Amino acid sequence: MAWYELKSADDTRLDELAERFQLHPLHVQDCRDADARIKIEQGDNYHFIVLRPLQLLEGEEELHQSPLTMFVGKEFFITIGDEQCVAIREALERARRAGSDTLPDRLLYLIFDTVVDSYFKAVDTMDDRIDVVEDNVLDNPSPSTLQHIFDLKRALIDLRRIIVNTRDIGMRLQRDSELIDRELYPFFRDIYDHLLRLADSVETLRDLLNNTLDVYLSSVANRTNQVMKVLTVLSTIALPALVISGIYGMNLKGLPFLDSNYGSAIVGGMMVLSTVLLLILLRALRWL
Amino acid sequence: MAWYELKSADDTRLDELAERFQLHPLHVQDCRDADARIKIEQGDNYHFIVLRPLQLLEGEEELHQSPLTMFVGKEFFITIGDEQCVAIREALERARRAGSDTLPDRLLYLIFDTVVDSYFKAVDTMDDRIDVVEDNVLDNPSPSTLQHIFDLKRALIDLRRIIVNTRDIGMRLQRDSELIDRELYPFFRDIYDHLLRLADSVETLRDLLNNTLDVYLSSVANRTNQVMKVLTVLSTIALPALVISGIYGMNLKGLPFLDSNYGSAIVGGMMVLSTVLLLILLRALRWL
Amino acid sequence: MAWYELKSADDTRLDELAERFQLHPLHVQDCRDADARIKIEQGDNYHFIVLRPLQLLEGEEELHQSPLTMFVGKEFFITIGDEQCVAIREALERARRAGSDTLPDRLLYLIFDTVVDSYFKAVDTMDDRIDVVEDNVLDNPSPSTLQHIFDLKRALIDLRRIIVNTRDIGMRLQRDSELIDRELYPFFRDIYDHLLRLADSVETLRDLLNNTLDVYLSSVANRTNQVMKVLTVLSTIALPALVISGIYGMNLKGLPFLDSNYGSAIVGGMMVLSTVLLLILLRALRWL
Amino acid sequence: MAWYELKSADDTRLDELAERFQLHPLHVQDCRDADARIKIEQGDNYHFIVLRPLQLLEGEEELHQSPLTMFVGKEFFITIGDEQCVAIREALERARRAGSDTLPDRLLYLIFDTVVDSYFKAVDTMDDRIDVVEDNVLDNPSPSTLQHIFDLKRALIDLRRIIVNTRDIGMRLQRDSELIDRELYPFFRDIYDHLLRLADSVETLRDLLNNTLDVYLSSVANRTNQVMKVLTVLSTIALPALVISGIYGMNLKGLPFLDSNYGSAIVGGMMVLSTVLLLILLRALRWL
Amino acid sequence: MAWYELKSADDTRLDELAERFQLHPLHVQDCRDADARIKIEQGDNYHFIVLRPLQLLEGEEELHQSPLTMFVGKEFFITIGDEQCVAIREALERARRAGSDTLPDRLLYLIFDTVVDSYFKAVDTMDDRIDVVEDNVLDNPSPSTLQHIFDLKRALIDLRRIIVNTRDIGMRLQRDSELIDRELYPFFRDIYDHLLRLADSVETLRDLLNNTLDVYLSSVANRTNQVMKVLTVLSTIALPALVISGIYGMNLKGLPFLDSNYGSAIVGGMMVLSTVLLLILLRALRWL
Repeated sequence: MAWYELKSADDTRLDELAERFQLHPLHVQDCRDADARIKIEQGDNYHFIVLRPLQLLEGEEELHQSPLTMFVGKEFFITIGDEQCVAIREALERARRAGSDTLPDRLLYLIFDTVVDSYFKAVDTMDDRIDVVEDNVLDNPSPSTLQHIFDLKRALIDLRRIIVNTRDIGMRLQRDSELIDRELYPFFRDIYDHLLRLADSVETLRDLLNNTLDVYLSSVANRTNQVMKVLTVLSTIALPALVISGIYGMNLKGLPFLDSNYGSAIVGGMMVLSTVLLLILLRALRWL
Repeated sequence: MAWYELKSADDTRLDELAERFQLHPLHVQDCRDADARIKIEQGDNYHFIVLRPLQLLEGEEELHQSPLTMFVGKEFFITIGDEQCVAIREALERARRAGSDTLPDRLLYLIFDTVVDSYFKAVDTMDDRIDVVEDNVLDNPSPSTLQHIFDLKRALIDLRRIIVNTRDIGMRLQRDSELIDRELYPFFRDIYDHLLRLADSVETLRDLLNNTLDVYLSSVANRTNQVMKVLTVLSTIALPALVISGIYGMNLKGLPFLDSNYGSAIVGGMMVLSTVLLLILLRALRWL
Repeated sequence: MAWYELKSADDTRLDELAERFQLHPLHVQDCRDADARIKIEQGDNYHFIVLRPLQLLEGEEELHQSPLTMFVGKEFFITIGDEQCVAIREALERARRAGSDTLPDRLLYLIFDTVVDSYFKAVDTMDDRIDVVEDNVLDNPSPSTLQHIFDLKRALIDLRRIIVNTRDIGMRLQRDSELIDRELYPFFRDIYDHLLRLADSVETLRDLLNNTLDVYLSSVANRTNQVMKVLTVLSTIALPALVISGIYGMNLKGLPFLDSNYGSAIVGGMMVLSTVLLLILLRALRWL
Repeated sequence: MAWYELKSADDTRLDELAERFQLHPLHVQDCRDADARIKIEQGDNYHFIVLRPLQLLEGEEELHQSPLTMFVGKEFFITIGDEQCVAIREALERARRAGSDTLPDRLLYLIFDTVVDSYFKAVDTMDDRIDVVEDNVLDNPSPSTLQHIFDLKRALIDLRRIIVNTRDIGMRLQRDSELIDRELYPFFRDIYDHLLRLADSVETLRDLLNNTLDVYLSSVANRTNQVMKVLTVLSTIALPALVISGIYGMNLKGLPFLDSNYGSAIVGGMMVLSTVLLLILLRALRWL
Repeated sequence: MAWYELKSADDTRLDELAERFQLHPLHVQDCRDADARIKIEQGDNYHFIVLRPLQLLEGEEELHQSPLTMFVGKEFFITIGDEQCVAIREALERARRAGSDTLPDRLLYLIFDTVVDSYFKAVDTMDDRIDVVEDNVLDNPSPSTLQHIFDLKRALIDLRRIIVNTRDIGMRLQRDSELIDRELYPFFRDIYDHLLRLADSVETLRDLLNNTLDVYLSSVANRTNQVMKVLTVLSTIALPALVISGIYGMNLKGLPFLDSNYGSAIVGGMMVLSTVLLLILLRALRWL
């Protein structure tokens, strides 16, 4: 059994292989499309599979995905993927360790399993990030939190699409009698099971992230309410004093206590008293 | 019939049993995975079932779940579960009371039924907690309420996933002629019926919890509106007095009543009058 | 044909009947479960049906439901229901009027039809209540409105579940050749048609009720906006007068018009003028 | 072929026809039910169809619908509908113009097609109204806009239900070999195609209308924000002047410039300067 | 093989062709309907296909779509489309380049593929526009942003409907053995794959756009909160000074420091001190 490993779809060997194994031109074209959709398609004497292993770089919000395309025939196995992507390198290395006489479906299992494992890391990282955002939203909602939510949302949408599309491949492979040996059935069902769990987790994350925006809004509204209360209490404290001092600042005759020696003490007492009464009144009416 | 009870998947007896009954390596591996998904899978001569009984500890928001895995053969029954989890202990004890000659499908029924019963307690506790949050949200919305809603949401998402996945097992078991004796059909249908009711209840709880955030926001907005009104009324009361007293505080000539002995009474009356008129005006225009 | 009417599942006659007609123990147990789910199940020689007729008491938000369980055999008909519930009493009375030689499927039709009719009343009452809440939300949003929306939501979720579950029974019965005589087919299809209409109506109510919370929030936000505007207009009117009168209250030399006899008139004119100009400016800039 | 046109289901001729053509009592009863659901049912030797043509009256929010019931047999055709409804009159007139020897399925086509055309008018009117509401929401959000959104929502829910239910009839009729002649197949498929387009449009309208409430809230929040800014700028302008003039209004000794001839000019300059500095500071800190 | 290219459905040649190839009158009518739905229908000896190629004009929000209708027979191919639409012109030109002996199914592929490619451009443009709106919403939420979101939403709803309806055609064509030669199967599957990717992308865009309204609201609420804080801080700074200076402005006897030469310094110190204490208090209580 021959395994052809290409680093890039621009490798001219791809054209030779295409000719030798009668690969369909559209499949070869898909190999060269950086945005090729995750999928499995049946060719004349082979299966064509596109996966998109994931990498979440430290400190970056965006998901890095890089296509890994495979032609799985009865007697040949072609992989095309850039090993600069850690997830692709790990997958290929694990397959290589299986030895040179491993059959294509077994190699496919090893690679597919490693790729799906890389999704778990991505989901865990997303979970941690959403946790951080949740805490931020409650403790210190700020515009940068909104930007962060937006970025996480985009990343999560991408992650979800990748997992859901890969799950469809998983479902198809677990019962594809033509491609997969019976012996390997439980192994592919196991991968499919992992993909179901991943899809579950992503739905949970989505649900939680959707929540954060509402909580952000509620949190800010609450703070505004508190600030308003402070302002109102301040005004309530100041206004009686201002009104009364204003009145006694008028150049008019006939105000009481104007000539009293205790005038300022009496009027000061009036100020304090009216403020206290006002606060008690507002409290009693449950307006504050 | 032999029932092998293991306390932990690390027990070396598991490997012996795996060899004797030809348990699939992936199933043995699942037993050792603390996060194994709730599922039923058919092995060569047995069914492999993973359940996740639930415990809601007093005063803790999080759900405690602990896996209970089972291999149900025609002639053997293997259970692996940590009895420190109350729900697992109860399930196993009920099965033990059935006597040593009970058949595997009957044991499965007893355990499955007890586990599903433990879900009812969890759903009831969640219901009570959501009730408390609902009341908090209306009476006293605060950031800690938001935190509480968040925690409940996470717990409810977990609970829902557990119940939905268990329901799928329930549906499969009630018509699995290979594993279950005809006699027991109505009993498994009864469990399935309970799981449908649980799924119904969880949907209701979810619907209600989703509501609370909107109500929180509405409730806070309402309070802010009220505080604003208080502030505006205070300003309305104070401003005419401040303006008039300011005017009479100016060191200018020609102001009316400056020399009148009733000046302060007249001006004081003007203050009260303008405030009252302003309040009446705002009221009449329905601005307050 | 024998019709056995039991007022309560605690009646010991139920055990006798269970023995005589070989009723399944789980069905008998369901009869005694106050929370039994709405369902239809096929026993050995009978059908077991649980319905939950509805009563909306005057002035109470909650739905009162009381189980009505039936065993419909070829030659016997057992009903268990508490006639204190008006809807159950009406259903049984209508069935009794049909005469003692009526066949079980005909009796089932009469009872089922009456129960479904009781749902129409419940849906109509809910519709009226949601109408009232909608008006409240627009005219006078208050915390008690929020409480009301919450209660209606809970009631509506219950109502929906009951109708949807009953609809499933309706669908099954309209094509159950074993239980229902061909002649009665159009009648059961008619009930099913009513249940479809009810489910339609409940969806509409749900949609409308979900709206009210958003409208509540919008309505409160609008009122806050209006109160803010009033406050700002008041401040705009007062501030120029306060600033100018403050300036002329200073014990400083060199202010213009200090010694003019028309000083107060001139300065008063400045106050009015600056206020008017400020208001015009804000208006022109569309800031108010 | 005989076509019996009844203006009302209370017409006694209906009973005669029911007897002559063996119409099922439940169908006759449905004719007399003003709320009968849109549906098609097969009788012994006829099809029973209920449609609900629509009328949107000028200046009224509510949809006016009036039932049009039909019995379509091989040799007879009965229509029951109130011609005061324009849509019913148009449908019947178009059918009449087809001549007296037209077969029932052809008559049904003519009527059904006209009724579906009347839906297009309703959808267009709703679209225009939602456009108006969208503009209102952005330009001038007011409580009456909220009321309008509410009314449109109710109307749209009704419209959607009518179109969806009619679409189900359309789907059934396009492949009903018993009722419809093969020749007419493309014509009924054409109607079905129209109904799909209508359902599409209604979904779009629903999506847009659901948006308006959120936009309303955003729009009001934006206006409140703007009003707040105006108030804050006003306060920022006034406060330094008020504080400084207050200080110089105190009856204390030792204030600088008290005796200077340029005192008021200097202090006035301080007021303007501090205000400008404050505004620049707030701007620089991006607080305004 | 004959290809008839018509620029407009009003061309009288259409009637001749309709007669010659027995085109169904309803299909001819659809050609003349500017709002014809995207669809595929089977005629007696041909397939009738309506596509709606897309154009997003620079600086305009709305999508321009123009129908392209085709009759695909075994021996003839009729296209009707206005070449003023760039996407239609490109599609037809690519088909023309294939040479005059190309079979109808091959021509259909070339046209269909080009039309679907035009969707990618539309989706990319929408993506860019949503990116711009997202940035606007965070940096500078304004009513014009709301208007923009509204317009994008309408455009996106249209785009989604077009893509989903075209996808249905794609699904049907990839397995239509009557119309399509086996050789071309992979090519039509490739188009279908593109349509799936497009539908994925549109869902993502929809999700993101729906978010923007919530973010808008959160962003505005945050700004209002900030403005409120500024106002409250300003008030906190000014109020002690105003109250104290008001008190010392009163024409009363007995105030301390009235006669001190350092009176203004002492009182000024009191003002600063009380303001600082107040700010520290608010900060300590976490009220600001």
